[in-house]
Amino acid sequence: MPLDLNSDLGEGFGSWTMGDDAAMLDLVTSANIACGFHAGDPSIMRRTCALAAERGVRIGAHVGHRDLVGFGRRRIEIDPADLRDEVLYQIGALDGFARAAGSRVSYVKPHGALYHSAAARRDLADAVLAAMTDLDPKLVLLGPAGTELEHAATAAGVRFIGEGFADRAYTPEGRLAPRGRAGAVLDADAAVAQAVAIATEGRARVVEGGTVEVGAGSVCVHGDTPAAVEMARRIRDALAAAGVVVEAFV
Amino acid sequence: MPLDLNSDLGEGFGSWTMGDDAAMLDLVTSANIACGFHAGDPSIMRRTCALAAERGVRIGAHVGHRDLVGFGRRRIEIDPADLRDEVLYQIGALDGFARAAGSRVSYVKPHGALYHSAAARRDLADAVLAAMTDLDPKLVLLGPAGTELEHAATAAGVRFIGEGFADRAYTPEGRLAPRGRAGAVLDADAAVAQAVAIATEGRARVVEGGTVEVGAGSVCVHGDTPAAVEMARRIRDALAAAGVVVEAFV
Amino acid sequence: MPLDLNSDLGEGFGSWTMGDDAAMLDLVTSANIACGFHAGDPSIMRRTCALAAERGVRIGAHVGHRDLVGFGRRRIEIDPADLRDEVLYQIGALDGFARAAGSRVSYVKPHGALYHSAAARRDLADAVLAAMTDLDPKLVLLGPAGTELEHAATAAGVRFIGEGFADRAYTPEGRLAPRGRAGAVLDADAAVAQAVAIATEGRARVVEGGTVEVGAGSVCVHGDTPAAVEMARRIRDALAAAGVVVEAFV
Amino acid sequence: MPLDLNSDLGEGFGSWTMGDDAAMLDLVTSANIACGFHAGDPSIMRRTCALAAERGVRIGAHVGHRDLVGFGRRRIEIDPADLRDEVLYQIGALDGFARAAGSRVSYVKPHGALYHSAAARRDLADAVLAAMTDLDPKLVLLGPAGTELEHAATAAGVRFIGEGFADRAYTPEGRLAPRGRAGAVLDADAAVAQAVAIATEGRARVVEGGTVEVGAGSVCVHGDTPAAVEMARRIRDALAAAGVVVEAFV
Repeated sequence: MPLDLNSDLGEGFGSWTMGDDAAMLDLVTSANIACGFHAGDPSIMRRTCALAAERGVRIGAHVGHRDLVGFGRRRIEIDPADLRDEVLYQIGALDGFARAAGSRVSYVKPHGALYHSAAARRDLADAVLAAMTDLDPKLVLLGPAGTELEHAATAAGVRFIGEGFADRAYTPEGRLAPRGRAGAVLDADAAVAQAVAIATEGRARVVEGGTVEVGAGSVCVHGDTPAAVEMARRIRDALAAAGVVVEAFV
Repeated sequence: MPLDLNSDLGEGFGSWTMGDDAAMLDLVTSANIACGFHAGDPSIMRRTCALAAERGVRIGAHVGHRDLVGFGRRRIEIDPADLRDEVLYQIGALDGFARAAGSRVSYVKPHGALYHSAAARRDLADAVLAAMTDLDPKLVLLGPAGTELEHAATAAGVRFIGEGFADRAYTPEGRLAPRGRAGAVLDADAAVAQAVAIATEGRARVVEGGTVEVGAGSVCVHGDTPAAVEMARRIRDALAAAGVVVEAFV
Repeated sequence: MPLDLNSDLGEGFGSWTMGDDAAMLDLVTSANIACGFHAGDPSIMRRTCALAAERGVRIGAHVGHRDLVGFGRRRIEIDPADLRDEVLYQIGALDGFARAAGSRVSYVKPHGALYHSAAARRDLADAVLAAMTDLDPKLVLLGPAGTELEHAATAAGVRFIGEGFADRAYTPEGRLAPRGRAGAVLDADAAVAQAVAIATEGRARVVEGGTVEVGAGSVCVHGDTPAAVEMARRIRDALAAAGVVVEAFV
Repeated sequence: MPLDLNSDLGEGFGSWTMGDDAAMLDLVTSANIACGFHAGDPSIMRRTCALAAERGVRIGAHVGHRDLVGFGRRRIEIDPADLRDEVLYQIGALDGFARAAGSRVSYVKPHGALYHSAAARRDLADAVLAAMTDLDPKLVLLGPAGTELEHAATAAGVRFIGEGFADRAYTPEGRLAPRGRAGAVLDADAAVAQAVAIATEGRARVVEGGTVEVGAGSVCVHGDTPAAVEMARRIRDALAAAGVVVEAFV
């Protein structure tokens, strides 16, 4: 079974930088690119799309709340109709840069607070899906499996790809264990092992012990620190050593 | 010769409104829709695109500087490469809403300070054109004739439509006379007459007296006050009485 | 017993206007002035402070979430420490304009979603109070009586003034009945009568019938439409006819 | 003669960081703190004011254009009356955090594009001064000597402190040589020597050779990179070795 590696990229703004996008784009097969609402600006979006397209990395719209100061991590009460509009705006804007780079936006991944709230609330998940089908029904949704986002995608006839995390333990129900919980964040060795386990067995570590099935077609790797980039590289190498083909899901 | 009537629409933001878009969309054939940088937000963009598409009014991207507080009317020193990115961002974002309404962005008109600076500076005009051809070389440019915007369009192989103003007098060179000058702003009767003269004779009033040739395929009408809407209605009626076909240029 | 009349003012932004501030400032004794986060910009803040100071109207900081597109009406998940900082920023900014007008910010009123969330959550209420005492412990808090905002003010040793609404019915517990409920919004005649009843009897209408005690030292009147301004004028006249002295609480 | 060392601090925004403020605050005597328009947010402003106050470092308002994406480095055409309002807003906002830290804003320094445009245009310089005296006529202005900023300060009766740059060569007229010019940016050794020369002789290097008198009561040091922090430390040490007392000008 092939596995996709995705990473959140293009997360600077103006003079502010975040992460080493060029390094990560040599490691991943799908780039979740910020669209200017929680991070990213037009010039960063063009640059990141161009770097991704040059390497054949798939371009995804990493859509978030209009919240630069909170980096899209704060829940904002939003009318689902307005959310649909904000998501469509972001996908459309990014698609211009993807086209300019000879590519297209091929998938959407909600960011931060929206990732969690749309996973939990069907009306918000439906709003994300409506924005996607407004633009192009062939767009794929990347997000947490077994949540309202997956249900909404199924109902909308949109292809859904479950996202797994290499460096996080899970609950027995197959959800991410909250960061605050002891053992919820895995060290580098465990993360590398978990990436391989997700790819080869479809299983991840449960925070209380044991493993759980996680249907993840893509694993998220981080690149915001040099250590994170190094861990992503180790994951990429370990997958190769285990015979896993790393390739984009679209 | 047919004439297009265009108007700047979708210029509210959040709870703030500006103008009577629905009334204007019954009068014009081309809608310059704000894209969120100087005015407009995603929900207003969707609503305005839907209203335009229902009436068969063409959708244009009214692109401006990132300057909500200044309504895009203040000159901002911007690197041409960054301007290209900001323009592409805005066209792409609006195109999503146009598509969702079953239409497409078919032209671009710079707004406010950008209208004037890109008319005067070739590097900025080229940046606008580059953004347009990044997305779609068939996009049409609407702007002031005989300026760098027209030259840049010609050089880029992009169709250009000159914009005339019914309620403004011109210089002997065929440029808009500055607002501050005596006689520069025409009253309602004169504006109605000038719209007909532009359509039938291709000529407009010169501020010092006499007329000048203005090659305008589209005339801009305003809708920000009830009096402005009324003037637009009178212009539309006078054009019909003069046998001028009012239709979109694309 | 004297009564204060307050109104939300300075709620435009850039080219966008809202309400008739000059008319309202002839009617009220306290001006809740937006501070640039949910509405208002520096030039509007200066102008509104100057108009208020000329008339001897007290200046209050109407502090809200950083949310221009949502007009501060959407709940935003915010860390109480960050909220304290955002509130202090807004009070400080407005105080500069109040001083320039020869006055001072003398009270604070939370706006929109923050009004409701800080009324319900003690940690958020404490954050508002901490910002106030950071700047000046003599600042007064204006808000809904009997809520966490009042409790937090008491704990902080800050003077609290309860706010009543002329045009809204209450629950039997003395809270505002939700807008959606039948009978929750009073017509003009009922609103005028309720303003007098709050001032002379300390009682307001309960949505299910009867009245409830509301300890309101200030009544909020709106000015966003000509009808609202007219209602405010009628309330002011009716209070005078009933012998109620309308004066600021500070 | 004592010398002040100043640095631009608090220049992050939300999740984005810039420079090592804590390290710089151990080296400088005056902190130019961003006020949220070109950089800085309320929580960063509180933190930076607190760090400065703990060390007895003077707090200055580093006021800039409303331009997060451009970091305040782009010229924006602004009406002087609006500029006065934007500057007053920023000083007032920062003063709240300075007071909360037991200090006060004691000076103002324009940032980026505003530094240059207000140095060149008297109407903009007057606007900055008007904002300062709106709040407190005892505020000091820090900026380039011999420019409209100094003239406006003199006319307004405001104390002016000229700012020198250790790492930049000057024109024969005593202005900064443009960055693009060969020899305009000094290497670390030359910068250390120039800081001492400014303090002890009141002279700096001319880009074409020789030196020129620069009346600088404060020298600006940068802290945006580890190398910049190291250079600031060497300057501090060299000044001490030369017997220069480093102390704030207010």
